[in-house]
Amino acid sequence: MTFSDPQPFVLAIHGGAGTIRRDALTPDLTEGYHAGLRRALAAGHAVLADGGSALDAVTRAVMALEDEPLFNAGRGAVFTAEGRQEMDAAVMDGRDRAAGAVAGLFGPRNPILAARAVMEHSEHVLLIGEGAMDLCRHQGLAMEEAPYFFTQPRWDALQAELERRRSGTPDDGDEQRRHGTVGAVARDRDGNLAAATSTGGMTAKAKGRVGDSPVIGAGTFADNITCAVSATGHGEHFIRRCAAHEIDARMRWGGQSLERAAGGVVEELGVIGGSGGLIAVDRDGRVALPFNCSGMYRGVIGGEGRAMTAIHREDYRAG
Amino acid sequence: MTFSDPQPFVLAIHGGAGTIRRDALTPDLTEGYHAGLRRALAAGHAVLADGGSALDAVTRAVMALEDEPLFNAGRGAVFTAEGRQEMDAAVMDGRDRAAGAVAGLFGPRNPILAARAVMEHSEHVLLIGEGAMDLCRHQGLAMEEAPYFFTQPRWDALQAELERRRSGTPDDGDEQRRHGTVGAVARDRDGNLAAATSTGGMTAKAKGRVGDSPVIGAGTFADNITCAVSATGHGEHFIRRCAAHEIDARMRWGGQSLERAAGGVVEELGVIGGSGGLIAVDRDGRVALPFNCSGMYRGVIGGEGRAMTAIHREDYRAG
Repeated sequence: MTFSDPQPFVLAIHGGAGTIRRDALTPDLTEGYHAGLRRALAAGHAVLADGGSALDAVTRAVMALEDEPLFNAGRGAVFTAEGRQEMDAAVMDGRDRAAGAVAGLFGPRNPILAARAVMEHSEHVLLIGEGAMDLCRHQGLAMEEAPYFFTQPRWDALQAELERRRSGTPDDGDEQRRHGTVGAVARDRDGNLAAATSTGGMTAKAKGRVGDSPVIGAGTFADNITCAVSATGHGEHFIRRCAAHEIDARMRWGGQSLERAAGGVVEELGVIGGSGGLIAVDRDGRVALPFNCSGMYRGVIGGEGRAMTAIHREDYRAG
Repeated sequence: MTFSDPQPFVLAIHGGAGTIRRDALTPDLTEGYHAGLRRALAAGHAVLADGGSALDAVTRAVMALEDEPLFNAGRGAVFTAEGRQEMDAAVMDGRDRAAGAVAGLFGPRNPILAARAVMEHSEHVLLIGEGAMDLCRHQGLAMEEAPYFFTQPRWDALQAELERRRSGTPDDGDEQRRHGTVGAVARDRDGNLAAATSTGGMTAKAKGRVGDSPVIGAGTFADNITCAVSATGHGEHFIRRCAAHEIDARMRWGGQSLERAAGGVVEELGVIGGSGGLIAVDRDGRVALPFNCSGMYRGVIGGEGRAMTAIHREDYRAG
């Protein structure tokens, strides 16, 4: 799906990609996803319409998605094999490639703000674990306890996955359980690009496993010259292919359009088993939202302020 | 410095780059660095001469550098601001882009083997902290206690840096203190490429700070189609530029030679304050070892088995 007309300002978001089973999506749940996406689009659009920066817009949009329990980031993050939650996030500013990322974090209400704190209040790009927590506390980020982040569906999903492993039942291929992530990319009125990604990782993941989300160049990337990208999918493959930066490379050195570069990378990831998708915006405000699996929770909003959201390969709903 | 003739098999290594002050390098210390580099070259060369893989060669070479207290990786790793040691490492196989990386690790005698364990014995690419340690223990990696890793010069360097910060003295610009890293790249007889990088990070670094070494595409990268790269330098800039993967991109999509791509990336890093260097090998066995600071501990050994080592911009010594 492509929005190939240039836009003066535009925001695209995703809430994860994978095998999204239609039979598990009740009408209420479907509407819940669309409503959650619309709220995030509205939050980011308000920033852009007010002349704010792409960086602030993607931050606000991701905060909204983190606050929404349906998505696997912040509140509603999945559980590790040990029944804990470990969150990763990254943000990148296309103006100067300033970037911040955190991994293995638990506590900040909005992990994306932890990533921004690393970018804006440290000399570093990537901080992990307790070191990241020290910075968050020092910066006074809002913290939450375990009950805030807990959601029954995620806990049930962990129990089901652990039971599946105990019983030796083959994986049902429900990649959505594995790949939940949220992200946003934007172009602001000044032509600046930014990207942000946040995730709880994979249900029943090993302690300390870090996927592509906080890896600059893999799950998150932005450069005003080319594009801003936020990915969601089988993180290990996205890291090995340097997926987000590969799109920049094809545009910068190969002269490809955003649509061709983003589509090509996602298609090739699919060939090697890297299920997932990504959202991307170029310097002129064109948007691409390719995915190689059955669905990706996604949305776009441009200058006219009409929120467009979709889940499967289907017409977008106008909000 | 470039070794632009194709080689049937070749190994290049580095032991860090930065402002390497000649007045601090006594003849004995200089000889110690050259000898340490030669030992690592010999270890990797033995693998390649015996028909072994590039992956095994870079692993052996980095193990030798980790075992050498003069270099900032494994034994001899620098200390964090809290007086601890946190090590990062990554390895990547150019045959299929299999990769493994660890960050924030303390315990394994050879952190590069922890990275290989992630690659070969987990479904993941990046494991951090205790999660990585669990895998290392499960795989039976050799462990060491703090006294093994301790070296007086690194401890003294931490005290000097902490004192400098307390007294408000300006940084003396000794980037070597900040940027120590070791790494290796190789091409084997079968044309396969591999890269490995290992580091103790920056002296007095913040707890949890992760540089470019374990970030696939930033400090470590390998793909048989293009090149294998291991970087050393101001890690944050290397992450933001996706330095290692950018070389792949310029070769793949821009049609550049290894020498031009690697040299261009290192030069551009220097312009934005990203002091450092890298080693790279292409599919034909050409080697590039560019750096934008005063020196880089480095060495190359080809099919003929003659170890060539250098520190500053100077003629290589034949070992």
